Amino acid sequence: MDRRREELMAAALELFSRHDAEDVSIDDVATAAGASRALVYHYFGGKQELYVAALRSAAKELEDRLRPVSGGTAIEEMAAGLTRYFDFVEDHAAGFAALLRGGPANRAGEVGEIVEGVRRRLFKMMTNQMRVTEPSPVLRTTLRSWIATVETAGLDWLEKRDIERPALERLLVDQMVALLGVAASHDGPLGWALSDLGRAPAAHEAGGPAPS
Amino acid sequence: MDRRREELMAAALELFSRHDAEDVSIDDVATAAGASRALVYHYFGGKQELYVAALRSAAKELEDRLRPVSGGTAIEEMAAGLTRYFDFVEDHAAGFAALLRGGPANRAGEVGEIVEGVRRRLFKMMTNQMRVTEPSPVLRTTLRSWIATVETAGLDWLEKRDIERPALERLLVDQMVALLGVAASHDGPLGWALSDLGRAPAAHEAGGPAPS
Repeated sequence: MDRRREELMAAALELFSRHDAEDVSIDDVATAAGASRALVYHYFGGKQELYVAALRSAAKELEDRLRPVSGGTAIEEMAAGLTRYFDFVEDHAAGFAALLRGGPANRAGEVGEIVEGVRRRLFKMMTNQMRVTEPSPVLRTTLRSWIATVETAGLDWLEKRDIERPALERLLVDQMVALLGVAASHDGPLGWALSDLGRAPAAHEAGGPAPS
Repeated sequence: MDRRREELMAAALELFSRHDAEDVSIDDVATAAGASRALVYHYFGGKQELYVAALRSAAKELEDRLRPVSGGTAIEEMAAGLTRYFDFVEDHAAGFAALLRGGPANRAGEVGEIVEGVRRRLFKMMTNQMRVTEPSPVLRTTLRSWIATVETAGLDWLEKRDIERPALERLLVDQMVALLGVAASHDGPLGWALSDLGRAPAAHEAGGPAPS
């Protein structure tokens, strides 16, 4: 039974990744999954619930891809994470755009929570890699801004595709290094914490909480 | 008659700047403006239209504030524009958040267009000040990203208010300079165009199109 639900969700996600949510009907999903309309209603209750479930599964896939895997420096790990982020952008183009640009759902409600959840996870990953437990206001706004920068660059890239992905990823990593440098110049103690980002192996969540 | 419409809009904007759109009723607006419910319907047709009209007037006010006024360098003008942007963020706190975080309206529709319109205007202002008519992909994604950075910092500041506004504005200007530096290092011709941003007086729209 759970497997059937997974199949319906996969079909919905594939449709939402190619069409605006308002243009996808319950019937479309049922047809794509070779299921009945009634089965979709049985599992999801309605289109809004299906939309939320599909976005949630996309967000989960994105978060799974972002789990740190290498043993490189913090900068190297963030660069590798960025590549996996853009793999997701490329594989789920319209789904990514739908997640960030909104649709019929109330952004302040469940869908907004899904997007904020991904951002919080990214934020936590970065502070973990920097071994920072209590980010200063300057670091917090810098990391949030860089996440917005990546999202914006992802949407821009999907729209124009006039930069090669590897070149765009290098640009974003260099932007992050530059933004952290600016943050360090505005926040003395932060400068010390950031000074060996490019040298020391990155901290991992598995390694337990970092010293503050 | 037009003046009455302006008063209703001002009352609506003030309410939308303090409350989520879904918590503002036509009656609230009528009461705040000392008008009848019927008059609000007469001018706006319904709550969605009132919401869109109010956001549009907020966007117009923001754009009016951003019009270049000084005769300084491009960097100085962008810094002054940023101060006026944050004046708006501070004066219309919840309105700014509502504009960017969404609400009951379909973000892909009219409200999305209003937000994108402000971003386009900001983007045009910056390329004008840089005397760039055809931004390269690297410059385009950099400027879009910086606009997202400013929006994110504005939302973060409204939420936490643990950085002084002048310090945050200096951080954002330094971030922009750093991001432009990164862009220049990825885009040779751009480096040449950007090299005197901090020295030459900024170009103005009134001065006609800039050489490409």
